Amino acid sequence: MRGDLEDLRRRIDMLDEHLVRLLNARAACALEIGRIKRELGVDIYQPARETEVLSNVNRLNTGPLGPQAIRRLFERIIDEARHLERVADEDFRAEQEEAGELLPPKEGSSA
Amino acid sequence: MRGDLEDLRRRIDMLDEHLVRLLNARAACALEIGRIKRELGVDIYQPARETEVLSNVNRLNTGPLGPQAIRRLFERIIDEARHLERVADEDFRAEQEEAGELLPPKEGSSA
Repeated sequence: MRGDLEDLRRRIDMLDEHLVRLLNARAACALEIGRIKRELGVDIYQPARETEVLSNVNRLNTGPLGPQAIRRLFERIIDEARHLERVADEDFRAEQEEAGELLPPKEGSSA
Repeated sequence: MRGDLEDLRRRIDMLDEHLVRLLNARAACALEIGRIKRELGVDIYQPARETEVLSNVNRLNTGPLGPQAIRRLFERIIDEARHLERVADEDFRAEQEEAGELLPPKEGSSA
């Protein structure tokens, strides 16, 4: 029976390896979406899309995790994506500002 | 560019479908581990194993999610597994108690 325990733990380790990969792939997509939104001048925070994501995963869920557990898990996943997007957005603005300061004054400007 | 946004969202939906499946497979393993521990009379809460899981996923992580994000995500995943195990444990105890009450008194008992 302790052998079964070891097998199950190894299986969890394999699932975790897979989960780390998928979570990072998802985060990379979210970052790319953030970049496109920035170029389009669209607001990064879109609550309707979040509602859609949560309702999708809830519909796909077959258990043993309950609907509340799935909701809590995906709220965390969405939150980490938003956190990453925000950091990328701040970096972008800081770079823009810095580039703006380094540009020579326009011809005919009063400076 | 809006088309790219749609493609990325579809990709996220596919990743989410996969994530729901893996999270449930992991939860099923955790439930099975809980059942075995109960039979072995071992404590369900094993902090050393949790530390091992967190260090495993941190080692596997290549980003863009940072180490803190991965830690927060897996703390939530572990927490949901523990929650499921606890509910299963309570159900088991309640069933045991009920079965105990329904059993006829042993021969020679004072009842």
